[in-house]
Amino acid sequence: MIVLFIATSLDGYIAREDGKVDWLFTDQDYGYKKFYKSVDTVIMGRKTYEKALEFETHPYSDKEVVVFTKRKIPNVRCVGEPISFIKNLPHSKKVWLVGGGEIVRLLLKEDLINEIIQYVHPIILGGGISLFSGGIEKKLKLLKIAKYRSGLIKLHYRSMG
Amino acid sequence: MIVLFIATSLDGYIAREDGKVDWLFTDQDYGYKKFYKSVDTVIMGRKTYEKALEFETHPYSDKEVVVFTKRKIPNVRCVGEPISFIKNLPHSKKVWLVGGGEIVRLLLKEDLINEIIQYVHPIILGGGISLFSGGIEKKLKLLKIAKYRSGLIKLHYRSMG
Repeated sequence: MIVLFIATSLDGYIAREDGKVDWLFTDQDYGYKKFYKSVDTVIMGRKTYEKALEFETHPYSDKEVVVFTKRKIPNVRCVGEPISFIKNLPHSKKVWLVGGGEIVRLLLKEDLINEIIQYVHPIILGGGISLFSGGIEKKLKLLKIAKYRSGLIKLHYRSMG
Repeated sequence: MIVLFIATSLDGYIAREDGKVDWLFTDQDYGYKKFYKSVDTVIMGRKTYEKALEFETHPYSDKEVVVFTKRKIPNVRCVGEPISFIKNLPHSKKVWLVGGGEIVRLLLKEDLINEIIQYVHPIILGGGISLFSGGIEKKLKLLKIAKYRSGLIKLHYRSMG
């Protein structure tokens, strides 16, 4: 099962135009640790991986990490063909799709995202890197919502294909 | 007080590229009547007014209606200068900002939107007319959220300027 677990602004941006995410709350855990513990594999695009490297030398080092890129990154499993890789994953595996925009669009288009857990921050950015774009339309089933005192909300959807 | 009371997709679009809103739920009231009753004045851009005309001959006819346009529309109060008009409104008046994108951006930029009530539909459109864009950044304070069985959610924010 592929879960997109991600934070956006109210207007659906995952980062500013230059990739900055300075507007994200980091004051609390917001259920991250519990989610992370439940995950077997962590997948992402190259730019997102490079962003993660800014925070940690070996991001997600206690999990199986796969970066979708045609380049090579030392000591990291790089996969050039995301679609066939994901289609061959055992369904019992819980996979966290970290981002970013390009890989999300691709997997959304191919109906390979099963659930979306989207944290919406109480901010309008008015521009930046869109989580969803490229004309891919998907109906969703709302599973749960949660509201935090900081103004963050958590939306949990299942893809209806 | 200016309230933006509006429906969007999860990715923040108010309509498809061609203006279509066929994906909106209309099965229930979702608090619309109560909100509408509380409103003194209804304001919107020209395109939004023309959209409303598709549903009704005299949309919002029991309220004071103002359309922001430099053109003339028979029997409708048209205002060419939204900013000065709004700045001169008595603060005791509750004003519903219906849309659309252009006027929302302008008023957001000028800090003239006090509250946002945004209904988020359980759909990703992947493109269309953005509610927020143009690089205008605003911090918000979350006041309330509500969840409906249909998967619709209602987010209520106050602008933090």
